Amino acid sequence: MPVYRAPVKDTLFVLNEVMGIDRYANLPNFANATPDMVEAVLSEAARFCSEVLAPLNRVGDQEGCIRHADGSVTTPTGFKSAYDQFVEAGWPLLTAPEAFGGQGMPHVLGMVMEEFLNGANQAFAMYPALTQGASAALLVKGSPEQQATYLPHMLSGKWGGTMNLTEPQCGTDLGLIRTKAVPGADGSYAITGTKIFISSGEHDLTENIIHLVLAKTPDAPDSVKGISLFIVPKFLVNADGSLGARNSLSCGSIEHKMGIHGNSTCVMNYDDATGYMVGEENKGLAAMFIMMNAARLGVGVQGMAVADAAYQNAVVYAQDRRQGRALTGPADPAAKADPLFVHPDVRRMLMDAKAMTEGLRALCIWGGLQIDLSHVAATEEERQAADDLVSLLTPVIKGFGTDKGYDIATNAQQVFGGHGYIEEWGMSQFVRDARIAMIYEGANGIQAMDLVGRKLAQNGGRAVQALFAVIDGECAQAKSNPALADVAERLEKANGEMKAATMWFMTNGMTNPNNIGAGAHHYMHIMGLVAVGSMWLLMAGAAQKALLAGTGDKAFYEAKLITARYYAERMLPDAGALRRKIEAGSDAMMALEPAQFAYA
Amino acid sequence: MPVYRAPVKDTLFVLNEVMGIDRYANLPNFANATPDMVEAVLSEAARFCSEVLAPLNRVGDQEGCIRHADGSVTTPTGFKSAYDQFVEAGWPLLTAPEAFGGQGMPHVLGMVMEEFLNGANQAFAMYPALTQGASAALLVKGSPEQQATYLPHMLSGKWGGTMNLTEPQCGTDLGLIRTKAVPGADGSYAITGTKIFISSGEHDLTENIIHLVLAKTPDAPDSVKGISLFIVPKFLVNADGSLGARNSLSCGSIEHKMGIHGNSTCVMNYDDATGYMVGEENKGLAAMFIMMNAARLGVGVQGMAVADAAYQNAVVYAQDRRQGRALTGPADPAAKADPLFVHPDVRRMLMDAKAMTEGLRALCIWGGLQIDLSHVAATEEERQAADDLVSLLTPVIKGFGTDKGYDIATNAQQVFGGHGYIEEWGMSQFVRDARIAMIYEGANGIQAMDLVGRKLAQNGGRAVQALFAVIDGECAQAKSNPALADVAERLEKANGEMKAATMWFMTNGMTNPNNIGAGAHHYMHIMGLVAVGSMWLLMAGAAQKALLAGTGDKAFYEAKLITARYYAERMLPDAGALRRKIEAGSDAMMALEPAQFAYA
Repeated sequence: MPVYRAPVKDTLFVLNEVMGIDRYANLPNFANATPDMVEAVLSEAARFCSEVLAPLNRVGDQEGCIRHADGSVTTPTGFKSAYDQFVEAGWPLLTAPEAFGGQGMPHVLGMVMEEFLNGANQAFAMYPALTQGASAALLVKGSPEQQATYLPHMLSGKWGGTMNLTEPQCGTDLGLIRTKAVPGADGSYAITGTKIFISSGEHDLTENIIHLVLAKTPDAPDSVKGISLFIVPKFLVNADGSLGARNSLSCGSIEHKMGIHGNSTCVMNYDDATGYMVGEENKGLAAMFIMMNAARLGVGVQGMAVADAAYQNAVVYAQDRRQGRALTGPADPAAKADPLFVHPDVRRMLMDAKAMTEGLRALCIWGGLQIDLSHVAATEEERQAADDLVSLLTPVIKGFGTDKGYDIATNAQQVFGGHGYIEEWGMSQFVRDARIAMIYEGANGIQAMDLVGRKLAQNGGRAVQALFAVIDGECAQAKSNPALADVAERLEKANGEMKAATMWFMTNGMTNPNNIGAGAHHYMHIMGLVAVGSMWLLMAGAAQKALLAGTGDKAFYEAKLITARYYAERMLPDAGALRRKIEAGSDAMMALEPAQFAYA
Repeated sequence: MPVYRAPVKDTLFVLNEVMGIDRYANLPNFANATPDMVEAVLSEAARFCSEVLAPLNRVGDQEGCIRHADGSVTTPTGFKSAYDQFVEAGWPLLTAPEAFGGQGMPHVLGMVMEEFLNGANQAFAMYPALTQGASAALLVKGSPEQQATYLPHMLSGKWGGTMNLTEPQCGTDLGLIRTKAVPGADGSYAITGTKIFISSGEHDLTENIIHLVLAKTPDAPDSVKGISLFIVPKFLVNADGSLGARNSLSCGSIEHKMGIHGNSTCVMNYDDATGYMVGEENKGLAAMFIMMNAARLGVGVQGMAVADAAYQNAVVYAQDRRQGRALTGPADPAAKADPLFVHPDVRRMLMDAKAMTEGLRALCIWGGLQIDLSHVAATEEERQAADDLVSLLTPVIKGFGTDKGYDIATNAQQVFGGHGYIEEWGMSQFVRDARIAMIYEGANGIQAMDLVGRKLAQNGGRAVQALFAVIDGECAQAKSNPALADVAERLEKANGEMKAATMWFMTNGMTNPNNIGAGAHHYMHIMGLVAVGSMWLLMAGAAQKALLAGTGDKAFYEAKLITARYYAERMLPDAGALRRKIEAGSDAMMALEPAQFAYA
């Protein structure tokens, strides 16, 4: 059975030595996060995830969720008990506001917790993640009464939450929504419609489930401008806070998916169900985007986390399994064969995985920190700068992070050879689970368009210019340091490719917007490569500093320097190729008619 | 349910207009393959594959194979009937020697048939493919008596065949084999051992199954030099050719796999089973390689075929599903949304798939033709040249072809958004099925090492020098043609990257062989990119010729020219990045100790 050890050491390195979060100690929330407290929290989270959740990962895959004739859903064996422990330990409250009983820790720690949960058990992690997304929307858009009624129980994990966007005829294009919301005399609405792909839509983990549902009021404009958001609880809540009548909504079926079997992905039927509008009429999409942006970053974390879990198992297998001999002569002459670990092509897959997961981890932590800073930094200027950068990088972390996460999981499976294809080994599950992260919360093509079609141009390109400047500054500083110069030079070159691609869009996008769409995917990947590269430069700098100081784990820091070099040599060259693809434009891509694709 | 239409038109274009097989009409086998005959054969094969096999593809995935308490195995509903039709129509005999009742058609047509079978139903296709591989070994290494006893029924498909190499402790490294073969008084051997991952190991499609098993005789050297090959029939064959006693071998279990559920992947237990040595003692590996080389090319075809099937469905879905609006303004203003087809990022995935599958198809057909020529070309020089090229390119077609096949299937699934993740749509199956092709018949890392560690250097690099020269010659000729010049120039540049990478290996491999291993994967991909690029140059040339002549389907030929350009612009730039990765060498890749990969 696969193992998972949450990367506490690497996380603390990034938080303390790379990001230096102690410099934010005077900011709200961060005061709670003293170094000792952070280490204690992460160690305990790691223990829970590795010991309680990880052993249930394959159980969830094998058993899946079962829908009964009455529409109720049973989660896999052990999930309920694990969830109870999760709630009892107070984990859902880690970053929740103190006003609602939360622990008020910085958002970045919630992001780390999300990594550990997903690395251990992606299907399980989705239950609290959806609740958190729904809570985030209510925290910003809910009325004081709605917040008082729902948030304490949602934030504590006692109640679950969901996001209901997709319908059979509409996924990306929410203007096509058909679910209706008819106002009643008491101010509530009667919600009728069918929603599909509803993660955690029905289950036995919580005593109530608060569905957030997008629907259209009778006179709403027939477009995305006519969508409103509604709270539709599974059980209505009485005035005294106790659970009331069962609402007229139900799980119609559970989808048969490629992976994440342990999460109940439901078709949800609403049949004159009682709902309560959140925020203003026809402004539902804005509220939904609050959930979505946090969720997108979370999905990027998820892609990296599952890749890391797969990679950890590949590292173990490569040392355990013996086949063939090292190219340089037997490494273990006494044995009949050497471990796979001696073979360069195996090492390539492990190093690719190490370089990308550790780099993405740093980028995700950096992103989580920017979210904190966008809320609590001392000046408006700092808050704006943090918001600019994380808004720009959110689609990149989601799209690039999950594309790479899937590649890494696939390579980790490859290390196992034929055994990787056999379900018992668990490597197939990592690949099948990782696959969804490229699709949900906006398919990666949507992330790419969000990046190039919206984020790049916002405020006259302020955010991307800031990113260029940050990276150029880091490179300029590092180039004078012989231990970092090579990495810095390669990063500067890749940043140059990104600048050139950006310029190409500016020059060629006006005349034909398809030129931007045609390069969107590649641009998202250039930015991902460069952003992760900048994290490697920072990590290398922090590692070298520690080595010079002679403190801590020498082998760990040396590995950081070597992996930074590996990343620069083996990953950054792709930036040039991606730029050339972008500069090819859209002519050949868009030239063919539908019939020209079929040739049978 | 997914559809599949075998690409007859594209195949005929490649065979007739690109490869010009009519120029071989005077060679043995090719005389049987008149243009009319080829078209008739392919059309009928396409009908059978699309109408009979494709509808069973999802059935096979859902039902899988069932092992009963007595060790017998039932294939999925419909497989037996389809197999009977397959045999009755004589398909297995298409390229079999006329001396054994075969139709004696050129090998290249068998390769096309393999594509159609795999595009329709990979799990089904593996049953005859394994039989064909086993037959190929007996055709070369079997004694006349063995050939007479087994081949007629195996070639006709009445009996099945398998390859038994892998054991729990050994996959790639066959020197670790433990299965024993003890000689008996009558010249037969008693075979005892356990083999795993045996495709088509036990099933209900044929009345007998002829297992080819690698085992060690009692005094054999304890290495790959001590392996012998044995025929171990499920039912022994009486002197009169009738079936005799049941041999003491059985299917111990069926593996639970990520995909190809319709194929019975068995653990096979041999318990003093009666076996007959094939060829010489301790020379079993050579015989096995006869099967393996043909099988490797076949697996490359398989990767491309499954990718093509996935792509075909993505093309249909992209025209059917409507979400959002074209970036250039509504393409269908009367409807509420445009088809996915208008979105550049969707078109990117479709064009990537078209450019790669059509290019790989041409390369596979070219490879099949080289195999024919290596046997029947008029002069020893021509036979040698063909053998050189196909030997060099076999690991590339297998490794690069299946890597790309998996990417294409994944992208085709991505076009479906959330629906792609739901099993009912069938896109998940394509991905799960395509995944195995990167692993079996030598994992792709082994293919890469076969290429750089063996094929490159053979005969002083004669084969790769010939490849350079062929491509340079094609480029030089095409550059003077304005319609082809741009593609030719880009291909020439990519060929230059491949030459430089080759030179780098020559210079840096002697001092440290890890430098070769570290670049093997990337080199395999450069050669794949360039080889497919050369096919696109040939296809573009043929298309332009047809357009100038004004014959045939104008839209088809124009699509070829545009897709050639797309390939050159969007795929070939990777060659430069791959070269730079190779030139990074093995230092950073091999520097870390095992403990430096773990950081929990």
